[in-house]
Formats: sequence, structure tokens, C-alpha cells
Amino acid sequence: MKNYFFAVFLSVITCFGYTQNEDSLIIRKIFTEALTNYTSYNKLSFLCKEIGGRIGGAPQSIEAVYWAKKTLAEYGADTVYLQDLKVRNWKRGEKETCIVKTSLAPEKNLSVCALGGSVGTGKKGISAKVVEVKNFDELKLLGKDKIEGKIVFFNRAADPSTYSTFPAYGGAANQRVHGAAYAARYGAVAAISRSLTLAYHDYPHTGIMYYNDSIKKIPAFAISTISADLLSEFLKNDTALTIFLKSGCFENEDTTSYNVIGELKGSEHPEEIIVVSAHIDAWDNGEGAHDDGAGVVQAMEVLRIFKSLGIKLKRTLRVVHFMDEEMAQRGGRKYASVVEEKNEKHIAAIESDCGGFTPQGFCFENGANIKGLIEKWKPLLIEYGLWLFIEGHSAVDIGIMKNLKFPLFGLMTDSQRYFDHQHAPTDVFEAVNKRELQLGAASMAALVYLLDKYAL
Amino acid sequence: MKNYFFAVFLSVITCFGYTQNEDSLIIRKIFTEALTNYTSYNKLSFLCKEIGGRIGGAPQSIEAVYWAKKTLAEYGADTVYLQDLKVRNWKRGEKETCIVKTSLAPEKNLSVCALGGSVGTGKKGISAKVVEVKNFDELKLLGKDKIEGKIVFFNRAADPSTYSTFPAYGGAANQRVHGAAYAARYGAVAAISRSLTLAYHDYPHTGIMYYNDSIKKIPAFAISTISADLLSEFLKNDTALTIFLKSGCFENEDTTSYNVIGELKGSEHPEEIIVVSAHIDAWDNGEGAHDDGAGVVQAMEVLRIFKSLGIKLKRTLRVVHFMDEEMAQRGGRKYASVVEEKNEKHIAAIESDCGGFTPQGFCFENGANIKGLIEKWKPLLIEYGLWLFIEGHSAVDIGIMKNLKFPLFGLMTDSQRYFDHQHAPTDVFEAVNKRELQLGAASMAALVYLLDKYAL
Repeated sequence: MKNYFFAVFLSVITCFGYTQNEDSLIIRKIFTEALTNYTSYNKLSFLCKEIGGRIGGAPQSIEAVYWAKKTLAEYGADTVYLQDLKVRNWKRGEKETCIVKTSLAPEKNLSVCALGGSVGTGKKGISAKVVEVKNFDELKLLGKDKIEGKIVFFNRAADPSTYSTFPAYGGAANQRVHGAAYAARYGAVAAISRSLTLAYHDYPHTGIMYYNDSIKKIPAFAISTISADLLSEFLKNDTALTIFLKSGCFENEDTTSYNVIGELKGSEHPEEIIVVSAHIDAWDNGEGAHDDGAGVVQAMEVLRIFKSLGIKLKRTLRVVHFMDEEMAQRGGRKYASVVEEKNEKHIAAIESDCGGFTPQGFCFENGANIKGLIEKWKPLLIEYGLWLFIEGHSAVDIGIMKNLKFPLFGLMTDSQRYFDHQHAPTDVFEAVNKRELQLGAASMAALVYLLDKYAL
Repeated sequence: MKNYFFAVFLSVITCFGYTQNEDSLIIRKIFTEALTNYTSYNKLSFLCKEIGGRIGGAPQSIEAVYWAKKTLAEYGADTVYLQDLKVRNWKRGEKETCIVKTSLAPEKNLSVCALGGSVGTGKKGISAKVVEVKNFDELKLLGKDKIEGKIVFFNRAADPSTYSTFPAYGGAANQRVHGAAYAARYGAVAAISRSLTLAYHDYPHTGIMYYNDSIKKIPAFAISTISADLLSEFLKNDTALTIFLKSGCFENEDTTSYNVIGELKGSEHPEEIIVVSAHIDAWDNGEGAHDDGAGVVQAMEVLRIFKSLGIKLKRTLRVVHFMDEEMAQRGGRKYASVVEEKNEKHIAAIESDCGGFTPQGFCFENGANIKGLIEKWKPLLIEYGLWLFIEGHSAVDIGIMKNLKFPLFGLMTDSQRYFDHQHAPTDVFEAVNKRELQLGAASMAALVYLLDKYAL
């Protein structure tokens, strides 16, 4: 590759050819600031390396709350406060064990982890035969006769064939979320589900699972894609193999936690609010770098950018770090209830929860009134790779406010690598590229600038 | 992140809303094949791990040639052949040394490597004081008095402020390419230039440098960004510091090497050719994964996809792996001269040389006749993230054929991470994501399909 590319870049600029009006100049400044100042990238390093995994209820999540509060103040927020709420208090306990005993090979450890919300196996663990299924229909077909007393192994792989990786995740997620509850109906003693990832590696991906209150709670595990294939291979040749499973997870009483909120007061309409948000909790088995440490520092970075450039917004910019997205979305619910209670006027809310990858655009809901504006803004944003604007679900936490009818935006990023890391030990600071991270922050800042100037 | 995203994905499909005609169905098949078959990704592993760095003239480059020939045959090419040419035969020799001697600290090793094409220091190495400059103007201003007998340290950082990283590279490249020749004019004994990367790490990035035949050849080095900053910091407080530099590089007589060519004969117009290409040589200090092993396996993958799907192209698909892009582009020149000599009819040529990252579109030249077609094709391609179609320089090897007037296309990828790896020890197989790689191959295959069906 040679440096002819400068010419190419110039022709990109020329091609899109909008007039260099105030908006494009300000958006240029926003992106330049984001791409030349790595304060927030370094903050992510602290959040990942010094605090680490921080599932709601864990001491690390409280550490993260106070760190975020301090950082928002340091960035120059006018007001910083916590919003208290109760969260579930699930603990993983000791590291999980999964040993396969087969006539085909010496005893072998498989890579598993307990799913979030699962009960533990008890100290003795569970030993049982294994039934592999691809979906709930197969489970039903096998019925109680074939399943009772066994471990159900849900092994439907995510479908890699679509451009976005979210359909791959969505198409296989019911195994993880409801697998144990379904398996328990037929008398299974535990459930193992294939990790929700397109990566072929030996790391299990955790994530929330739910029980059905009327059915016995059985322990639920995720297994790495490599270990899943190995187990499946063994099962083809030894249906009598057994697995020993052990997990020490348990749930304590709900405990107090917090949303973190920081504001830059609007100069003309301080009572009108534009939210930029992410969730501060993260699974305990990684560092929560992409999910969603990236979003946390991006939301802060939006505030830092406006402060640093001296751009005065007419409306109030409110950074919200929601607690407990991963388990029960209590942070999102709490925030929504306060908005309703106080009858706060929100102009829009934006959330970043698709990882710190190169941004591609926004998905939005409740956007009927500003759809025309979005069309007008597109030429200002395409220069920064923002080509994707679609109506659809915005994001988990802000999505709770859908009934409040103001526009909700989810930052959409290049999803190719997202599920390589999500909920896994590979979700570490080193997996985040500083430029990709900062482009996401700048994209949200540009949207805030435009919403503040033109919305309503 | 929850599985609501399936809904989002469906709305993407609906949004773009083109009719599900034959073209969109075939392009869907192409992408599905690429995203569900990882043969070529595994081939890249072999090229990187078993062959490795393969600069023109090195035995590894010849190994790569025979490996590519074999792989193209294995993929079902009708014809596979080599096109011989002479390449430069530069050798790095023993690992380079750079030791800074300053009153401020104990002796310290800095991370440097010789630039491609550089002469060596001789066995005794070079010890001299250092003059830091940012550009050639500063060099001129200092003049012979201040520079003679010293080592010139070019320390202009790449500008990170643009969305594309190519302007950052282009804007700082003259230090690497011509730094030594300029410094030699003023009597410098060696030149060190800051690595052309936006990554902040301790790996030096090599790359070609050229001498001016009328001026003495002095050794040229690249220094890592971290070592460059350290050296600069030392110089601020100790202008009398010295550096010891040693490199063992040398150049042998030109030697024979090859372009690799594999074809799938066209069913209606076999004499009309569509080229899909990349360069098979790569710098010796890494594995040449993104630059340009990715392109090599992508070009092969295009052939594999058509063969595997049983799609018969009317024209001949010709996969070309150019030798010697990195040093003197002799492979590109050889190929162009044969095309002219044989008066071969080319419909178009495509090259992938921007790394195996998520594709964003194509830059094209000589495309006046098909500009309207590209506009028509855009709705078919946007679904796969291909939003960027610009007129400009296509790629280095095929660009040599610009005078032949047929359309040339360069695959454009997300450039954020490209210069973190280019020409550096970090350009390894592990830095390539299989889906991003395969999307690039599918993008080129889709373009080949459309060119074959509609061009002319």
C-alpha cells in the first residue's frame, strides 16, 4: 500500500460534496477531538484492568459506580449524582468443573461456566449421562423417558450466514435463556448450552438464564464452541458417556446499587434533556471491555468532547450509566420510573451497547418526527462511515422508555467481532481499538449536536 | 445485548427493500458460501504460520508461489501457471541494534529495524550524535553545519485526525521513503524515521525506502512509536547523547521470481478476462497476514466460491498473485507488459490490498463507462456493508495498467486497524478475523458476478 491514498481521501470529501457549513465544521471538530485525545480510552483501561468484571451486586460494580462518578466530575459535569436501586445479587462462587468420562479417551476437562442466575450443583456436583439436542422440538420429541435423570446438552450452533451477527445470536439464544427451564420439564438434572458466539475457541460465554417458577431449578452451564464439538463427537461414538458437573453459584438477597448520572446544563432549555448512555455492569468472567465498558467511556467522552471544545448545548446533556443491564435491567427500569414520576422532558436518548467497534450508524425508534431530519443529516455523517440508519429496537436500557414516545437511538457498530468477546474471558481491554472506540463516541456526540440544534 | 436484534436485522432487509431478483439471490448465495466455509481462512493460517514473511527474493516467497499454485489447482482452477520475472534481492541480515547512550539513563535498547532497500551499517556499526527533525524543511534549515556526521531522526507523527487512516500514512510517508536520501545530502551518517503507524507500541514498521543515485547511500531505519518518543524525550534534556546503530542488510543480484495465475475459463467469452488479485510478497518482519496474505486468500476464495456454487461466468475469471509489490512492483509491471504484448482483452481488474478487515466498498479508476452501473448495483451491495464507491487510485499492482483504460477496482476496507499491523511484527494470522476476511472475498466475488453479467 502506498500513499496515493491521500488522493483517494480527498476525493471522498469531494464526492460527498456537501457545503462546508457550520454543522459540518463542528462535526469535523468533534471527530478531530475524539481521534486526537485518548483520555477516555485510557479510562477504559482503568475500568477493565483495575476494576474488571462487575456484575450487579458485586463489589466491583460499586467500585465502578464511584469511579464513573469521579470521572464525570473530573470531565467537568455540572452535576453528578447516583440513583439508587435494588439489584439481584447472584454469585458465581468457585470456578466451575466439567469432566467427561468416556470409554473413548482419558478423563477430559471441558470448558464450561455457569450461566448468570443459575443455581449451583451443590458440593458433590452432578454426574449423569448426556442427551444432545438442537432445539426444544427435539427435546419434546425425546420426552421424559429419554431425558429424566440426564444432562441436556443444547448444541445448536449460531448461524454464521448473515452479514450482521445479531441474527446469529438471536437465532440460538433461547437455548441459553430458557434451556434449563425446558429441560427441567422433562426431568433433566442439568443443562449445558453451546456458547452464543461465532468464534471457534475454548472460552465459554456466560449470560443470563431464566427459570420458570413452577418448575424445578436445575443448574445451567455454557460450554465453549470447541468443547461443545468435542463432546458432540464423543457422544456420536459413546452414548453412555457421563459428565461430572460442578458449580458453586448461589443468589443472596437483593442489594443496593446505583445508576450514575452526570450532566452538562443546557444554556437555553436546561429542563430539556438529551441522554447519552451505556450500562456499567458487566459479566464477571471477563473485563467487560466491549460489553459495555466501551459504551461507558464513550458516553463520558461525549461530555468531555463538548466541554473540551467549548460547545454550549441549548439542552441539558445527561450521561447515564445504567446498572444491571445484564441480569434484570433494574437500572433502566428505575431511570424510566423517575423520568415518569418527575415528568422530565426528554428530547432523545442514545445508548451504546454494541461494543467499541467501528460505528456504522444508528437504529432508532419513536423517531417518526425526526425521520426527515435524519435524511437531511445523512450527508453530514456518511463521511465518518455512518451509513446505516434503520427503524428498529434501539437498546435494552433506554428501550424501557419506549412508551414515553421520545426518540431512542442505539449506536450500531460493525458486529463481526462482537460475539467473539461478548460475555467471555476474551472481552478484555486489549480487544478494543482506540480509534474504533473514539469514532463511536464522536458519532454519538455528532448526533447529540444535531438533536440539540434541530430537534423540536 | 439481547436478541431483539433479530427484529432489527429484518428491518434492515426490509428497509433496503429491493426486489428479490436473481442478482440479489446470487449475491446472497455468494455471501452465505463465504461466511459458512472457512477453507481460505485456514489457508491463510498456513501461509502465515508455515511460510511466514516472504519478501521478493527470499526463499519463503518462492515457497509461497508454489503453495499458491497448488492451492489454486486444488480449488479447481482450469489453468494454473507462473509468470517469471526478476526481483530485487535485498536481505535484512542479522537483527538490528540501536543503543542510546545518554547521561540521563543507563544504556538503553530502542526498537528499530532496517528499512527495505537500505544498506547496512557494516560490522562495526555507527555511533553518532542525533538531530531530531519533523520534516525536510527543518533539515534544510539546519543545513550541513548541524547535520554532517550525525544521525538524522525524522520524528513527525502520523496525523490521527481523519476518519480514514490512509491520509495519516500518506502525510508522514516521505520521512521513511526519502528520509535517508535527504539526510545524506547534508552529510548525515544514518537516518531513523518514526514508524508509519497510529498504534502506540514498541514494534518498528519497515517498508521500502529509496536512495538518490547521485548521493551517498546511508543506512536507514524505522523506530517504533514508543522508542521514538523515548528518544525524543532524552534529546530534550541531553542533546549530546549518542546512538549506536547496527544493521547487516545487503542486496544481492536480482533473482528470478514469479506471479501466480489461475483461471476459471469463461463459458461464452473465454478471451475476455476479469482479474481478481493481491500481492503475494510480504515484509520479512511479520507474517504478512493483512498485508497482503488476506488479499491472496481472498482472491483464491473468489474462484473457490464460483466453483463451489457452480456459477458459470461468461468471461474468464483470472486470479493473479503479484510478486514484489513491496519493493519495486516488478510483478505488476511484468503482468501489464504481457497483457499489452498479447493484446489480451481485460474487462476489469480488482485488487485487495487494504487488509482483511470489514469491507466498505471499492475505489475505482477508468470506470467512466460503468459509473452508471455502479449506481444501479449499490442497492444490491449496501446490505453487505458496501457503502463506499469512489473514483480514485485503485491499488498498486493493477494501477500499473491504468493506461490500458479498462476499469480497475480496489477493495476498500475499514482502515482503523490497518496501520497497527502493516509492515510490523504484529501483522500475524491472529490479527485477522475470519468473518471480516471472508466478507472481503464475497464483496469481490459479488463485483465479479455483476461485471461478468453487465459490463460491456
